Amino acid sequence: MFVLGIDPGLSRCGYGAVARRDGRLLPVAGGILASDPAVPLPERLRGLLEELRRLVAELRPDAVAVERVFFQTNARTAMATGQASGLALVAAAAAGCEVVQYTANEVKVAVVGYGSATKEQVQKMVASVLGMPAPPRPPDVADALALAVCHLSSEPLRRAVAAVAAPGGGAS
Amino acid sequence: MFVLGIDPGLSRCGYGAVARRDGRLLPVAGGILASDPAVPLPERLRGLLEELRRLVAELRPDAVAVERVFFQTNARTAMATGQASGLALVAAAAAGCEVVQYTANEVKVAVVGYGSATKEQVQKMVASVLGMPAPPRPPDVADALALAVCHLSSEPLRRAVAAVAAPGGGAS
Repeated sequence: MFVLGIDPGLSRCGYGAVARRDGRLLPVAGGILASDPAVPLPERLRGLLEELRRLVAELRPDAVAVERVFFQTNARTAMATGQASGLALVAAAAAGCEVVQYTANEVKVAVVGYGSATKEQVQKMVASVLGMPAPPRPPDVADALALAVCHLSSEPLRRAVAAVAAPGGGAS
Repeated sequence: MFVLGIDPGLSRCGYGAVARRDGRLLPVAGGILASDPAVPLPERLRGLLEELRRLVAELRPDAVAVERVFFQTNARTAMATGQASGLALVAAAAAGCEVVQYTANEVKVAVVGYGSATKEQVQKMVASVLGMPAPPRPPDVADALALAVCHLSSEPLRRAVAAVAAPGGGAS
């Protein structure tokens, strides 16, 4: 299974793709989609959607995991982050991918084991799980890879639940 | 000049188009783009973007005026409204339209004359300005028409400013 994680943002949108091969998780791609704050907002959003679509078309992930964003202290940034997250969801849905959302807390619990983990702990654990010599940089890429790891780590459980829930799956 | 106003929302996205002909403002189109809350969010957003694109392609407005949204008390609704507003901006920018944003307050000041006007006052004034026998229904359509009226009402001023600001425009 091959999962693309997206840490949505308007100025900087992080992405990171992780594949499971022979039971191991491997980093496949990672980077930043940046947009120029000097460009008018509608044009920035249009460009970001185009780049997200190109990314999904190029990588062809089985699933796309987008961080579920909430309101932060800075209302202006939060709205831009929300708009960027909407575009990530649209790009993934338009490509026919499975689309999932996780909160930052859910990612911490899945990757480190507890919701109060620091960003640095998440980044170190991502590096360790993916067999990378150092935490991925910049941090937006590490966050995106963590989203992909989060989705992949819960996949065996989801598969088992689906098998039991399927007609005749658990009754025999 | 022909302006499409959009009152962004995920469950209900209002639109209203207004044309200036022979110095008078005329309502040209109005309606609601609705999405089914039972459908998963990414698919709803994808469908809304498609409908917005179709609407803009069909109407071919000179400009699209989208309400600038802020955080409301209901964080869940506000995020969906933000995501919908981002899609409206993208649809307009992709069609090559001029795209503008106004806050609800700016619309009130432009249409009624003061920012503390009630929604009902705005709706009555929209009906009066557009020569409609009664306030447009549902309210989302009235709000969208008000956005278009707001942009059109400030157009002569913008044109005059642009003429003065143009090289040699105001120096003769």
